[in-house]
Amino acid sequence: MKQSKLFGKTTYEVPKDEVSKNAQLLIRGGFVDKLMAGVYYYLPLGRCVLSKIENIIREEMNAVGGQEILMSALQKKEDWVKTGRWDVDVMMKIESNLDKEFGLGWSHEEAVTPLAQKYVKSYKDFPFSLYQIQTKFRSEKRAKSGILRGREFLMKDMYSFHTSVEDLDKFYLEAKEAYFKVFERAGLRDKTYYTYASGGDFCKYSHEYQTLTEAGEDHIHICDKCGIAINEEVMGDLERKCPECGSSELREEKAIETGNIFKLMNRYTDPFNFKFQDSDGQEKNVMMGCYGIGLSRLMGTVAEVLSDEKGIVWPKELAPYQVHLVSLGNGDEVKTKAEEIYKSLQEQKIEVLFDDREESAGVKLKDSDLIGIPLRIVVSAKTLDKNAVEIKKRSEENFEIVETDKLQEYLAENL
Amino acid sequence: MKQSKLFGKTTYEVPKDEVSKNAQLLIRGGFVDKLMAGVYYYLPLGRCVLSKIENIIREEMNAVGGQEILMSALQKKEDWVKTGRWDVDVMMKIESNLDKEFGLGWSHEEAVTPLAQKYVKSYKDFPFSLYQIQTKFRSEKRAKSGILRGREFLMKDMYSFHTSVEDLDKFYLEAKEAYFKVFERAGLRDKTYYTYASGGDFCKYSHEYQTLTEAGEDHIHICDKCGIAINEEVMGDLERKCPECGSSELREEKAIETGNIFKLMNRYTDPFNFKFQDSDGQEKNVMMGCYGIGLSRLMGTVAEVLSDEKGIVWPKELAPYQVHLVSLGNGDEVKTKAEEIYKSLQEQKIEVLFDDREESAGVKLKDSDLIGIPLRIVVSAKTLDKNAVEIKKRSEENFEIVETDKLQEYLAENL
Repeated sequence: MKQSKLFGKTTYEVPKDEVSKNAQLLIRGGFVDKLMAGVYYYLPLGRCVLSKIENIIREEMNAVGGQEILMSALQKKEDWVKTGRWDVDVMMKIESNLDKEFGLGWSHEEAVTPLAQKYVKSYKDFPFSLYQIQTKFRSEKRAKSGILRGREFLMKDMYSFHTSVEDLDKFYLEAKEAYFKVFERAGLRDKTYYTYASGGDFCKYSHEYQTLTEAGEDHIHICDKCGIAINEEVMGDLERKCPECGSSELREEKAIETGNIFKLMNRYTDPFNFKFQDSDGQEKNVMMGCYGIGLSRLMGTVAEVLSDEKGIVWPKELAPYQVHLVSLGNGDEVKTKAEEIYKSLQEQKIEVLFDDREESAGVKLKDSDLIGIPLRIVVSAKTLDKNAVEIKKRSEENFEIVETDKLQEYLAENL
Repeated sequence: MKQSKLFGKTTYEVPKDEVSKNAQLLIRGGFVDKLMAGVYYYLPLGRCVLSKIENIIREEMNAVGGQEILMSALQKKEDWVKTGRWDVDVMMKIESNLDKEFGLGWSHEEAVTPLAQKYVKSYKDFPFSLYQIQTKFRSEKRAKSGILRGREFLMKDMYSFHTSVEDLDKFYLEAKEAYFKVFERAGLRDKTYYTYASGGDFCKYSHEYQTLTEAGEDHIHICDKCGIAINEEVMGDLERKCPECGSSELREEKAIETGNIFKLMNRYTDPFNFKFQDSDGQEKNVMMGCYGIGLSRLMGTVAEVLSDEKGIVWPKELAPYQVHLVSLGNGDEVKTKAEEIYKSLQEQKIEVLFDDREESAGVKLKDSDLIGIPLRIVVSAKTLDKNAVEIKKRSEENFEIVETDKLQEYLAENL
């Protein structure tokens, strides 16, 4: 992609009411645009990052046997009345000329449970898990955290169905590991803790993935020995001790919930009277788990956590492009060489953003840092004399001079 | 994918209120499930078809320089008041505990125009085109056409911006051809006509892509000489003559609008006072075009048009899988051979659905026709004696016996 043609320019102005670091960086880098509090548009660069996240999540959910579906945002009142969640605060309801009442799903237990019930009767059909990447709506009063807490946002929600608690436990562990793989690939694994949190009335604890950041609204207590954490909300129940080793040496940190997994047991299958026929002919309760991760929140967390004073430092698998090719100066030789490298990279199927704009070196390098593509190749008269380009990784301070003949080899080793 | 594990079974029952052929076939094949009138869930097979359609559309829009973005369903009242479209019937409005009024976008001119305006000032920034694949909401009173007319549906909407009518005209022709490519790949090209339709107050005509089907709500008049059509609604303006050759030899057909392209001119840029500075320093009007295609409607149209009494006949590029591998009989030899072929196809990266269920031959072959995957490979004792399998294309009556040694070669030629 040529940057001169890219829609959504870098900017040094952000809306006055935009207090969150993630939205400031993402707006300045040309990734998102703010429509109103809690509602953002994804510009081409941001849409590209979202697609990368979608693909990672699809791969990891498919790997544990999740089957992708797509449910609707529009929901029937009667299903949500059954579970007692129709009148919760976050539910947006629809005013229309139709004689029915609809709400907009802010989670999809009330959708997926009767759906599963329609198709599944026998123990032979279990276990199975369904997921979707879909837009959620929540009437959030506080919506000041950029894309960390949206009124409309993209979420992956998976639901698993089992004939026993043991089988649910087994899948829960697989899902736990799948989530760690997602955070690993998103560059957040080091700062993300598997965290004991409230389980509601139906199971002792749920588990959150909490990523350390000052922007987080949660307080967690980390046991460094076990590498896990406890959400403040359940510290009392645990007598302020690590549930795994019993140690009371815990350190408190601020964090944001970037994922959560929950043994719902029969919390939602019961209201729909969703049972199965077991091999002994008996009708038994269906056990259920749910596994959520906000795609836009994950993107916002990366912007919060993996950034420096110059801009975002995208991890390789989330970066909108792998290479930022920047030409400096307007000499014909530089322009020709840069175009030549651009074509060569495209032929090699390397995702490249080519800054072909007629801007000063200062502006171009500053923009490049702001956008945060992992590897930058600078073509300028200075190094062209030596038939070379200057390469700098966004995450490192130093740069290297690489001969253009050896560029392909360099990229094969460094991308 | 093993069919025994696939969520969403084929069924011979459909909801009593489901009168449309597309929804009946798609529900029976396990592609979609009906939540309520105009609102459907996409099960794994249906989600897979939607993804294929998404990819085709992305490729063809990218090929004409479209840049993918993602705007929100939630919309600000003030932008829609400006264009006079806030109080139209199809707009669903939100009731919530927030002190703001929101609507749900049923088209996105009111979203994309102020967005483009924010980032673009000079003639140098033109032309450009933005598109999204996004969920639309419409308060449709008539919602009896299955996924052809949804209250919630997936749409690709592209918008182009230009400094002159001539430049808009030029892009319009490129978009026209891109649309034909989409219909070609979706298997609908032969039955789809470029159709003159009403242009509203701002341009003489818009153009629809009308696909012939009894399920269509439109009446079009085809000029076979030119290969174009005229929507009934503008026949009067055209004095019942072909606008291209002047012939009055037209034949009337029922059709469904599967796409439309529209020169909006300054219909939406004016209310936002979106102007650009030209090379002569003057402020001038921005010209705009829009290009829509409903993904779910396209899928429904394929189900209507490319089907026979047995079920859907998916075109290659839309089929959820390329091969349906079906084992018949429960003999160990058959099971082992089928598993072996399944693994081999997976290793060759061929998308395969493997019917490994313990059902009768009659049920399995009937289900296979209903699902409609282009190529079926049957493994049974009958042909295994000859070290062969039986292959049948869904679109043809005859089958072939192919030696298992030559299967790879056969598939390389026939997929």
